[in-house]
Amino acid sequence: MTLPTNDPARRTAGPARKRVDAIRIALSPDDWIAAATEVLIDQGIDNVRVDVLAGQLGVTRGSFYHHFRDRDDLLRRLLQAWREGTTEQLTVRLEHASDDPDEQLADVLSLPFRGRAAERAARIELALRAWARSDAMAREFVDEADASRIAHIERVLRGFGFSAAECRHRAFLLYSYLIAESLINTARTPAQRRDRSAFVKQLIRRTL
Amino acid sequence: MTLPTNDPARRTAGPARKRVDAIRIALSPDDWIAAATEVLIDQGIDNVRVDVLAGQLGVTRGSFYHHFRDRDDLLRRLLQAWREGTTEQLTVRLEHASDDPDEQLADVLSLPFRGRAAERAARIELALRAWARSDAMAREFVDEADASRIAHIERVLRGFGFSAAECRHRAFLLYSYLIAESLINTARTPAQRRDRSAFVKQLIRRTL
Repeated sequence: MTLPTNDPARRTAGPARKRVDAIRIALSPDDWIAAATEVLIDQGIDNVRVDVLAGQLGVTRGSFYHHFRDRDDLLRRLLQAWREGTTEQLTVRLEHASDDPDEQLADVLSLPFRGRAAERAARIELALRAWARSDAMAREFVDEADASRIAHIERVLRGFGFSAAECRHRAFLLYSYLIAESLINTARTPAQRRDRSAFVKQLIRRTL
Repeated sequence: MTLPTNDPARRTAGPARKRVDAIRIALSPDDWIAAATEVLIDQGIDNVRVDVLAGQLGVTRGSFYHHFRDRDDLLRRLLQAWREGTTEQLTVRLEHASDDPDEQLADVLSLPFRGRAAERAARIELALRAWARSDAMAREFVDEADASRIAHIERVLRGFGFSAAECRHRAFLLYSYLIAESLINTARTPAQRRDRSAFVKQLIRRTL
């Protein structure tokens, strides 16, 4: 998102300076949030600082305060943007849900196999979870997302006729597996992952 | 580990200075590794720096180089110390293992219920996993630990007569659950956790 070095604006001095600033102020809040998310993933929350981000985006710190009250405001909106993304995914999922519990379960189990999008989502989540260990605001957002997703899986499993308590336990176990698929780097050739997914699909439906 | 502020050594000037340095050099490599681990957990890997640690321990940077070649040397030994800890736990576990698969499974399932030690181990692991996303050395250690633990659970499950392939899948699923118990903050009243553990113990043994 940094202006390319061959940008003519960079090579122009004097009166054109104002135009350059106008371009830079044209960075949207989303640009800042995207940059902050990248820094969070690669370097951890302590490096998500206005000066670091301004340097990366090639703009002044002043243009940050054009959009955000302070660093906390940025962090809160980063978490809100993440929540919107995950909530939206879940809503789309529910709207397109088939009536067939089998198909719904297959949809849940397909999540770790969504390629680069799944990889990136997993990287963001791991960084958020690490941050949430020492930050109450981050923890609130992560806990809420975990609870909504487990509730969604519970609803899917109810279609198989298990008791409410069993649905809760099965949903937690299935969600654990989905997280671990993105967290654990061992035993993950495509064949291993595919076979494991088929196995989990069978076992999670077995009665006790 | 910082010298207390009412330490007489701090208030003595001049010739006593050498004695103070002797005390400070008496910090062991383990003290540095413990301090580095705390900083890793609370602030992320980028803040594990010689100057930060020396400041926390109240010593000069020079005394660091008494024990470590450089920062990389510290990071490698931090990972080695973590590996020794986890390997030792596994070894103790194997040495005391009962011959009864049921008891072995109960032992595996008791891991998330080991109170503060389990909490702390989970915090360290989450920080290591976040670090391992962008660091090959850390990833190697984390992957190795995951692989040994999954292999241990596989051995336990073989006692129930499942095929090799099923043991692998079941071990991955059970390990996923163990990790998630420490990772997910929602749905974790003592009763929920206890009931869930009992449920997983039953389901993981069910034939397909």
